[in-house]
Amino acid sequence: MTSVDLNADLGEGFGVWTLGDDDAMLEIVTSANVACGFHAGDPATLATVCKAAAARGVRIGAQVSYRDLAGFGRRFMDVSTEDLIADVMYQIGALSALAAAAGTSVSYVKPHGALYNSIVTNRQQAYAVAEAVQTVDPALPVLGLAGSVFFTAAEELGLTTVPEAFADRSYRPDGQLVSRRERNAVLHDPDEIAERVLTMVRKGRVAAVDGSTIPITVKSVCVHGDSPGAVQIATAVRERLVSDGVTLTPFS
Amino acid sequence: MTSVDLNADLGEGFGVWTLGDDDAMLEIVTSANVACGFHAGDPATLATVCKAAAARGVRIGAQVSYRDLAGFGRRFMDVSTEDLIADVMYQIGALSALAAAAGTSVSYVKPHGALYNSIVTNRQQAYAVAEAVQTVDPALPVLGLAGSVFFTAAEELGLTTVPEAFADRSYRPDGQLVSRRERNAVLHDPDEIAERVLTMVRKGRVAAVDGSTIPITVKSVCVHGDSPGAVQIATAVRERLVSDGVTLTPFS
Amino acid sequence: MTSVDLNADLGEGFGVWTLGDDDAMLEIVTSANVACGFHAGDPATLATVCKAAAARGVRIGAQVSYRDLAGFGRRFMDVSTEDLIADVMYQIGALSALAAAAGTSVSYVKPHGALYNSIVTNRQQAYAVAEAVQTVDPALPVLGLAGSVFFTAAEELGLTTVPEAFADRSYRPDGQLVSRRERNAVLHDPDEIAERVLTMVRKGRVAAVDGSTIPITVKSVCVHGDSPGAVQIATAVRERLVSDGVTLTPFS
Amino acid sequence: MTSVDLNADLGEGFGVWTLGDDDAMLEIVTSANVACGFHAGDPATLATVCKAAAARGVRIGAQVSYRDLAGFGRRFMDVSTEDLIADVMYQIGALSALAAAAGTSVSYVKPHGALYNSIVTNRQQAYAVAEAVQTVDPALPVLGLAGSVFFTAAEELGLTTVPEAFADRSYRPDGQLVSRRERNAVLHDPDEIAERVLTMVRKGRVAAVDGSTIPITVKSVCVHGDSPGAVQIATAVRERLVSDGVTLTPFS
Repeated sequence: MTSVDLNADLGEGFGVWTLGDDDAMLEIVTSANVACGFHAGDPATLATVCKAAAARGVRIGAQVSYRDLAGFGRRFMDVSTEDLIADVMYQIGALSALAAAAGTSVSYVKPHGALYNSIVTNRQQAYAVAEAVQTVDPALPVLGLAGSVFFTAAEELGLTTVPEAFADRSYRPDGQLVSRRERNAVLHDPDEIAERVLTMVRKGRVAAVDGSTIPITVKSVCVHGDSPGAVQIATAVRERLVSDGVTLTPFS
Repeated sequence: MTSVDLNADLGEGFGVWTLGDDDAMLEIVTSANVACGFHAGDPATLATVCKAAAARGVRIGAQVSYRDLAGFGRRFMDVSTEDLIADVMYQIGALSALAAAAGTSVSYVKPHGALYNSIVTNRQQAYAVAEAVQTVDPALPVLGLAGSVFFTAAEELGLTTVPEAFADRSYRPDGQLVSRRERNAVLHDPDEIAERVLTMVRKGRVAAVDGSTIPITVKSVCVHGDSPGAVQIATAVRERLVSDGVTLTPFS
Repeated sequence: MTSVDLNADLGEGFGVWTLGDDDAMLEIVTSANVACGFHAGDPATLATVCKAAAARGVRIGAQVSYRDLAGFGRRFMDVSTEDLIADVMYQIGALSALAAAAGTSVSYVKPHGALYNSIVTNRQQAYAVAEAVQTVDPALPVLGLAGSVFFTAAEELGLTTVPEAFADRSYRPDGQLVSRRERNAVLHDPDEIAERVLTMVRKGRVAAVDGSTIPITVKSVCVHGDSPGAVQIATAVRERLVSDGVTLTPFS
Repeated sequence: MTSVDLNADLGEGFGVWTLGDDDAMLEIVTSANVACGFHAGDPATLATVCKAAAARGVRIGAQVSYRDLAGFGRRFMDVSTEDLIADVMYQIGALSALAAAAGTSVSYVKPHGALYNSIVTNRQQAYAVAEAVQTVDPALPVLGLAGSVFFTAAEELGLTTVPEAFADRSYRPDGQLVSRRERNAVLHDPDEIAERVLTMVRKGRVAAVDGSTIPITVKSVCVHGDSPGAVQIATAVRERLVSDGVTLTPFS
């Protein structure tokens, strides 16, 4: 029996501001990357999304970030090792209390935005994030990009790494993502994306941007929910997988 | 054998800014009320003070606050119940992760500044703070003012309340503190303060501002460390208690 | 010839988050109360709305607030006089630079949210805000509530006060607003609201909540734009006024 | 007659936290680089330092920064052009209101910390800062590093550039600063530093780290005030210059 995890970013409002449709996405995904207050997510918003996730049996991960509300964590910051370790521990701990209050727990960590991108190659920050997670709980898996320095660091420290695929992104022949600065970096057609994800999951391969077919290991598929179109794509992905008999379940 | 706890606020710097002498105070107190990031305390500062406290066997409490860095948590804020509960849980959780990384844990909660003062009488906020603590861990004691609405709320929810005395504050005949707006609200002479604390601890009584003697229950004595003079007073209190054979130990 | 000003809050996003439809509202109002960064409004958002307002000939006012992003400035804060004066001056100055960059200027001040409500009766804060405005520029009018302590303070300091009416709020027989805690505090029907505003402007009177008719002085009418329904109401108000020959123009 | 300007960073506290001795430094310098709230400087602190500077005839410059209180603006941030332009304008405008309230004005701009360092070479950010200054007021000079991309950008946009020398930093033979990561990057002896600054100002040259003598153009000398030792050095510099007949006066 084939199964896969679907993950998306949630809890990304702040105070009066909302972003995306958390309730809709909780009907689609099996893992919720919940913001921790540094790029988004005031505590009351986080408490609410934790409760809603727990009520639906959706697993919660800590979506840790640079401290940058104004930039939504999307701007690289040259944070020292000491600060980054403490920042990540602080965020995981904060979300853990809210998850526990909802009767569940933080069961993985996924870095957000510019931090996610930075630690694909930035050794100093990659090891800092990995060390923070390992210090908080060495049993917490990390969700990220296969082949990243972050995964090397995490594995070195004994963490479980869970590679994710992106439903709506183009891949290069070497398996890396086509940069968002390129044309065709992002796919938009829901049916095409859904079919593509099914092939990734069922066959373990994906068509690269040059037409070649490349292998891909998918334990989790990242979908988005920050626009009506994004929710529609996520729904299409879920329905295509389910209709083909794929079980949607949190990664193990 | 008589014993008492000494508590003080620590970890109240932020980034490049420092406040008080944490290392000096850790040699004096038995319980450290550590900031949680909302009125002070960037994560790296908090991680450092947690390690230093653990190294000296000083117990850590979560000093929860309104979200107000610019006002150091000293300004009343009319925060909703839902927000306040989530804010307090978030802060306790965040500090808990840093305490755990230091090999220790958060073992009590003490509200800070304007929140401390507000919940002496503000029923809505008092119950919110108590509910937050109870939700995170009903075994966490709260440190505060005897006779406060906060203590009523905490006890109603099954929390252990630990009344503290203030080393350098004058008391009214009814056992309440003389307002800081009054003359003589604060004592300044180290020897006088030290002798006064000894009497509180040994005899369970204190001279009120009108000259009368009133009973006082002291499980913990609050001292300050935010100025050289404050550290000197705290040292005098500790030495007077020790020289009289009082055991300084965390409240049980 | 009868004329009136229509004002609404704009620039109330922050970074990635948006609130309301600024472009739609700029087609409706004659005065834009632009956020200044303390309750909402990152600088790039503010620069954009200033340019858009300038392009349409809509006047800009500084919507000053408590420093409270997480609470959107809607929570009372017990800010000291010294801090509040400086906070208000800082905000006016910041927005002024962005308005000037757009070829226009800040031409009035309107306090926001909890600060607006506080200074209806809070003398200390009312005088602080008035002093801040007077210090920055004694020629800057202030928009607010007739009969408020703020208006008393502002007039005492020589500022021009501009009373506003609320399109969608119920009035008590004494001319004050029905509290939002009461039923019927807010009106919802666009046509009813539009007709009501026309009567206020044309006749200088409004039906109070008890059915009596009371006099009202209206130099500006406050409309909202933070929901699709709000934009629809604002549009109805504008169209009703225009169809009746009322000139919409900034207050003088 | 030879004259030179002495500049230092001031107003770098935040709320309850202080940094350096602003009053002492205002007796020494002729130009105060006043923080603008993004790396330090709550409005009340800024209002106070503006008044103190005005009272002593010390000129005020806007010390603009990345938005990073937790990192004191010392961490590179990959800020977009649009955001950086608006951030810089916002900060200059905010400080301008407080300076005007003190009866003076912002008369130059000096970027702070990581932003200062970034725009020595980062073309995108250098042009953004220059454009922001030029938009606010093309008559505002900028203080910075001779040979920086920032100066190229500023001159291209018609701004006056004022090169500063560093009293306590070592220079490479090519005129650039020795990196702080090197040994000997920073000088510590007050008398040696004072003599060195006198030579820079009188002779237009300085001994590089390899023993060679290099030319240097000095319109302003940067001194520090963030520690007792720093104030002592600044005092020594001032006294040595004055005793040699150099006039200390704001750059023209």
